[in-house]
Amino acid sequence: MNIDMIQAANSRLDGRVRRTPLLSSPFLDEIAGRRVFVKPECLQHTGSFKFRGAWSAISALDPAVRAKGVIAYSSGNHAQGVAFAAREHGINSVIVMPGDAPKLKIDNTKALGAEIILYDRATEDRDAISAKLANERGLTLIKPFDNDLVIAGQGTIGLEIADQAAAIGIDSACVLVPCGGGGLTSGIALALAAKAPGMIVRPVEPEGFDDVARSLISGRKETNARSTGSICDAILTPSAGDITFPILKRLCGPGLVVSDDACLRAMAQAFNRLKLVAEPGGAVALAAALFHRDQIESDTVVVVISGGNVDAGMFTTALDNFG
Amino acid sequence: MNIDMIQAANSRLDGRVRRTPLLSSPFLDEIAGRRVFVKPECLQHTGSFKFRGAWSAISALDPAVRAKGVIAYSSGNHAQGVAFAAREHGINSVIVMPGDAPKLKIDNTKALGAEIILYDRATEDRDAISAKLANERGLTLIKPFDNDLVIAGQGTIGLEIADQAAAIGIDSACVLVPCGGGGLTSGIALALAAKAPGMIVRPVEPEGFDDVARSLISGRKETNARSTGSICDAILTPSAGDITFPILKRLCGPGLVVSDDACLRAMAQAFNRLKLVAEPGGAVALAAALFHRDQIESDTVVVVISGGNVDAGMFTTALDNFG
Repeated sequence: MNIDMIQAANSRLDGRVRRTPLLSSPFLDEIAGRRVFVKPECLQHTGSFKFRGAWSAISALDPAVRAKGVIAYSSGNHAQGVAFAAREHGINSVIVMPGDAPKLKIDNTKALGAEIILYDRATEDRDAISAKLANERGLTLIKPFDNDLVIAGQGTIGLEIADQAAAIGIDSACVLVPCGGGGLTSGIALALAAKAPGMIVRPVEPEGFDDVARSLISGRKETNARSTGSICDAILTPSAGDITFPILKRLCGPGLVVSDDACLRAMAQAFNRLKLVAEPGGAVALAAALFHRDQIESDTVVVVISGGNVDAGMFTTALDNFG
Repeated sequence: MNIDMIQAANSRLDGRVRRTPLLSSPFLDEIAGRRVFVKPECLQHTGSFKFRGAWSAISALDPAVRAKGVIAYSSGNHAQGVAFAAREHGINSVIVMPGDAPKLKIDNTKALGAEIILYDRATEDRDAISAKLANERGLTLIKPFDNDLVIAGQGTIGLEIADQAAAIGIDSACVLVPCGGGGLTSGIALALAAKAPGMIVRPVEPEGFDDVARSLISGRKETNARSTGSICDAILTPSAGDITFPILKRLCGPGLVVSDDACLRAMAQAFNRLKLVAEPGGAVALAAALFHRDQIESDTVVVVISGGNVDAGMFTTALDNFG
């Protein structure tokens, strides 16, 4: 994994990915006690950053291999990204999804043309299910994060942040990134290390699913005790990847950990101040910026909102309690 | 009013205004039965397009005049745009607001540093109140729409639409614009007539407040019978302006009229499909595109979402009923 792979992905994504803006609000600056810039990947195609990695990986396949179709496992955002990128390439996709994924994500993935295989997150092994189907049907597995091409796609967000920050005279900042398996975080960290070395990436996770924060302290890959039990469904990954963790260890600052309540509060702030719809897992970095200000040191913070695929019921819970 | 004034406003706005993206969703295309592109001015500073006109007008004032401060009357979006543009210029602002404006808009305007004067929309005359205060304190009145510099500022959205559409190969479309007093609609119509003459602007209004639709039929300025009674608070203007109406008459296609329910439905679609927060009046054009498809002829429609300053209660009403 290196910056050249991210640059190459950036070229493949050109004209296909949405170049998301860098937003801000004086009200958020006040709460955070510093300048806050928000990179809203909820505005990306399919409502999350995952479309970038999916397009990067599928567009790089040998055409004959690609024509046989792709398979992915995902709680929903990678699912939609792969389904839409596959459809835009004119190929079939099969998506293995947990039965308890938000209904909106399952429905959308189906509507984007994918064949859906549901499994039980607590008792079944998605890797085994996916490997079997891939073998039987000649499908290429697009892993959600531990794949160089996927990481390179997510890293294009880092290239954009570097350019957009430079355009407003910012070359030093703390960059907070929602972190599950670490594909997004490692991609952005690699891009910024090359293009804006004054920016330090810090992964943000939900309470009880802070394997990366603990791994960065212990120096080895830690695992979460549970696989369910947070509203941040998008980033409840058991542990970081074999490719992503060494990158995180080499380039990232300490992890931050936020409560589910802080995520709901951050969603209400994104609603009020940015007019954005963030999903709980997508709002962890904004939550850290707004409600853990004492754990951040720089004058400027850049926050990635990684997705906005949230059911209406969960969103109204955020507004009813904190809107 | 001419294209040169819009180009000059565009220069003054450079680096100050947010250049909003052009968004889309395959799900919206399906509902609308044609390609839909959305210009989300809810992402503009202060949550609506009004910041553009406010900045355009204030930045063009003679510095000695500007230093004495500005005054505006507004149900809330122009209020916030003027307050923030004034603060960024380091000058005072006084805003005359109806007492029944959404609490969020009043609170935000105050928090942006403006002095607020509340009046009763049904019994008091905001023009008289504003004129008296302007005289007494030497403030410059920034009218919400019937002002060349304000129209020029709003027209910069038309320049961006022309550029963004051209970049994806689109030179012909129906452009639906939420319409109150007609500042936004006339500005965009002027810009597109000069830069993308294949694009036809059509104003969209709420039921019961369709003065512009009726005026375009009768050929003279019609007036609404009521001043309250729709959730679309941002665009409940009694009639178009003396400057804006002749422009609308010369350049626009027929008006479209949508129900409050259609606005709530459109807000739910913007939530689900675009991850955007739209306010009722800001969603009228999206409502027309999605739910009045038989009244639109072109293959491609561009929709302006003019603002997102909606209370949590109204937003959850949209999601509870249509989310």
